[in-house]
Amino acid sequence: MRSDASPKTRSFAASLADFASGADDSRAFLERCLAEYEAREPDMQAFVAVDLEGARAAADAAALRWKSGAPLSRIDGMPIGVKDIIETADMPTGMGSPLYKGWRSNRDAATVSALREAGAVIVGKTVTTEFAASAPGPTRNPYDLARTPGGSSSGSAAAVGSGMLAAGLGTQVVGSIIRPASYCGCWGYKPSLGGLNRGGSHDYMSQSCAGVIAATREDAWQAAREIVIRAGGDPGFVGISGPELPPEPQRPARLAFLETAGWEVAAPRAKEALQAVLAKLSAAGVEIVTRRSDATLAALEMALPEALALTRTINAWESRWPLNTYAKRDASKLSASARQRLREAEAMSLDDYRAAITRRGEIRALHAALAGTARASIALSAPDVAPVGIGSTGDPIFAVPASLLGAPALSLPLLSLDALPLGVQLIGCVDADAELFAIAGAVERISRALA
Amino acid sequence: MRSDASPKTRSFAASLADFASGADDSRAFLERCLAEYEAREPDMQAFVAVDLEGARAAADAAALRWKSGAPLSRIDGMPIGVKDIIETADMPTGMGSPLYKGWRSNRDAATVSALREAGAVIVGKTVTTEFAASAPGPTRNPYDLARTPGGSSSGSAAAVGSGMLAAGLGTQVVGSIIRPASYCGCWGYKPSLGGLNRGGSHDYMSQSCAGVIAATREDAWQAAREIVIRAGGDPGFVGISGPELPPEPQRPARLAFLETAGWEVAAPRAKEALQAVLAKLSAAGVEIVTRRSDATLAALEMALPEALALTRTINAWESRWPLNTYAKRDASKLSASARQRLREAEAMSLDDYRAAITRRGEIRALHAALAGTARASIALSAPDVAPVGIGSTGDPIFAVPASLLGAPALSLPLLSLDALPLGVQLIGCVDADAELFAIAGAVERISRALA
Repeated sequence: MRSDASPKTRSFAASLADFASGADDSRAFLERCLAEYEAREPDMQAFVAVDLEGARAAADAAALRWKSGAPLSRIDGMPIGVKDIIETADMPTGMGSPLYKGWRSNRDAATVSALREAGAVIVGKTVTTEFAASAPGPTRNPYDLARTPGGSSSGSAAAVGSGMLAAGLGTQVVGSIIRPASYCGCWGYKPSLGGLNRGGSHDYMSQSCAGVIAATREDAWQAAREIVIRAGGDPGFVGISGPELPPEPQRPARLAFLETAGWEVAAPRAKEALQAVLAKLSAAGVEIVTRRSDATLAALEMALPEALALTRTINAWESRWPLNTYAKRDASKLSASARQRLREAEAMSLDDYRAAITRRGEIRALHAALAGTARASIALSAPDVAPVGIGSTGDPIFAVPASLLGAPALSLPLLSLDALPLGVQLIGCVDADAELFAIAGAVERISRALA
Repeated sequence: MRSDASPKTRSFAASLADFASGADDSRAFLERCLAEYEAREPDMQAFVAVDLEGARAAADAAALRWKSGAPLSRIDGMPIGVKDIIETADMPTGMGSPLYKGWRSNRDAATVSALREAGAVIVGKTVTTEFAASAPGPTRNPYDLARTPGGSSSGSAAAVGSGMLAAGLGTQVVGSIIRPASYCGCWGYKPSLGGLNRGGSHDYMSQSCAGVIAATREDAWQAAREIVIRAGGDPGFVGISGPELPPEPQRPARLAFLETAGWEVAAPRAKEALQAVLAKLSAAGVEIVTRRSDATLAALEMALPEALALTRTINAWESRWPLNTYAKRDASKLSASARQRLREAEAMSLDDYRAAITRRGEIRALHAALAGTARASIALSAPDVAPVGIGSTGDPIFAVPASLLGAPALSLPLLSLDALPLGVQLIGCVDADAELFAIAGAVERISRALA
């Protein structure tokens, strides 16, 4: 089932100079994406719906603006997919659930509205797991069709990883951006909590965060930046802060090596691959702080094994609604795992929930204290490459800490094990997303430099 | 246009003993409400939709449970109306907008789902202004059909004020619960920010809060309490805390007399009426702290004149979406005021918004500092009784401070000017809602005692 050649992501940001010079244009860029789509979508099933005619018209309009020297933004003409939990005026929003199959809201979500204002080309809706939670969709991994693309932002990651799109919108409440980005060889960007406006996105949880899966660091930054200046963050949040252009790479003085609960279960080869990156960073003058060398980091590490269970407790209570009203409507249209989550929620009390969010607050404080030691942490994005089978979207154990912490996280497609991708994760300080991108640029450079 | 007799609210909480003894039942209670509905609704227009058959069946079922000594809760059988910005599975949710006329979400909002679990009888959907913002609906004041009921929770206040319902759900982001409760002679309860789960309610703003308009203090507490233990607060918030039964009245040692920017524009007779209440409180041993006697209070008062403009700035940015996608769909179906708000939003930058929420945070800190001086503040709920005309829902100047502060607020129907109601407002400490109810009980008793 392996593809003949490794898929390649397709950077829009890298084409901007050619758009400006006239050597390339956004319609031609789209056609390269669509050629990949035509070739691979029948097997890969990244999309729930596409609007190719609309996409071509939008790409043509963008090309004209680039030609006249007046693009709407640096993502004018960028082909983007929208996770199908997020509303679009021109396509249905199915939420990965038979209850919403074909449902039309007749409006764009805040992120989609901002993307359109910036000239982005909305190619289609990408597969999500049921209500962006557990029950997987039909999407397969672009590196190996026998494997999962990860989830819940499954379709966005598969489409970006295979070069069908330059970027895709995703959401993460447990590991739904970092994990699929890792499995599909993309950059995954989960912003600081509240970083991008979730209006019109149907995951209502307190850890949920809209973000971007993209071909490169520059594409991830630019797409997020063009959204936030037009749509803001979640109501009441400052939203992602930072410069107009992707932050220049900046080597950090220190990085905290974060084991998390994942280190014990990670594949030995994955651990070796990360350790090789750490060795390069160290050789390049980056001090690697560990739980053995730093008490603040040790305190955080002591707490992180709670992250997954705590997140699931919080999510269960926060899913009580709307799952209860969906169950009342037609419980047979909920997956077994959704029904199980509802039972868990209905066995909980508000006091149980309060205890969980109080504990979360304490762990967030431990992470905030780490800022004095290191401005970013480095970890694996997942315990190994994508597992075989599409019945599960894989283990979120490395991705969940940043979700719990409300901290910005990036998955960098730096590792390759047996020709399958694995991400290196960087977790930054809350609301210091631009600094995390700068650090990521340096980590990418150092990691890719010859030894 | 004045009604012959002053309307009377109808307390469900006061009937519980009769339900338990069999002297009354929830179906009979509902029929008394519906008799009022039949008599007054044609002129008053509080409802967008009703389900009288469903309500009667639900009231019968509740009556059986009371008879068997096993009610689902202390609001089992309580007739409640739902502001039409909040989703209901069995009735359309029109949001006061032609864009959503007849729209069905096929699900219950979190609050509605919780109410049904607790046995409450959902009588119908009550009139809201357009998207719970400015453009008024057709509802008229139950005390005088020539006057506004206030807004945006217009229908809930009018229906409760006239005894058609024991309680109604409302939402407040500027003054949408406190003001209509004041104008219609009801108790209005805007909880601490995030106090009740807004899932499935279509006002997305950072100050927005779901709350209850009710016949009495006890009804307001009980309805809110039965919702929160089942649906929680907004995701990530602790939700309203407090006892199962309405907190016992408790005389506060001190109350802060809060002028707000409203005092300068309030009607002299309204000011005199409040001062008479203050005099009674003082005579009963409650120390009234003023801006002249307390520096912490003075600092807060200095800032509160900013509350309305700051709130409007914040709301404008936060309304950019979804108004932009609605305008794209059909701008002719937005009111002139909605279009104007969108223009304001589109002239703003994210930095403008950040400055506004930063300033709001500073003013919230001034309010938090007041807790050491007094655990609650007392103010008018509105500058005067409901104004004549239904083209405007009246001045929110007294209601907006609690919205900005994220603090719990109650409007107590204690004043009557020329046979028209006016509320006394109490504003509590954030997340100390039960304490505010206890203080309100004492203020009600003292205020109603003979001089």
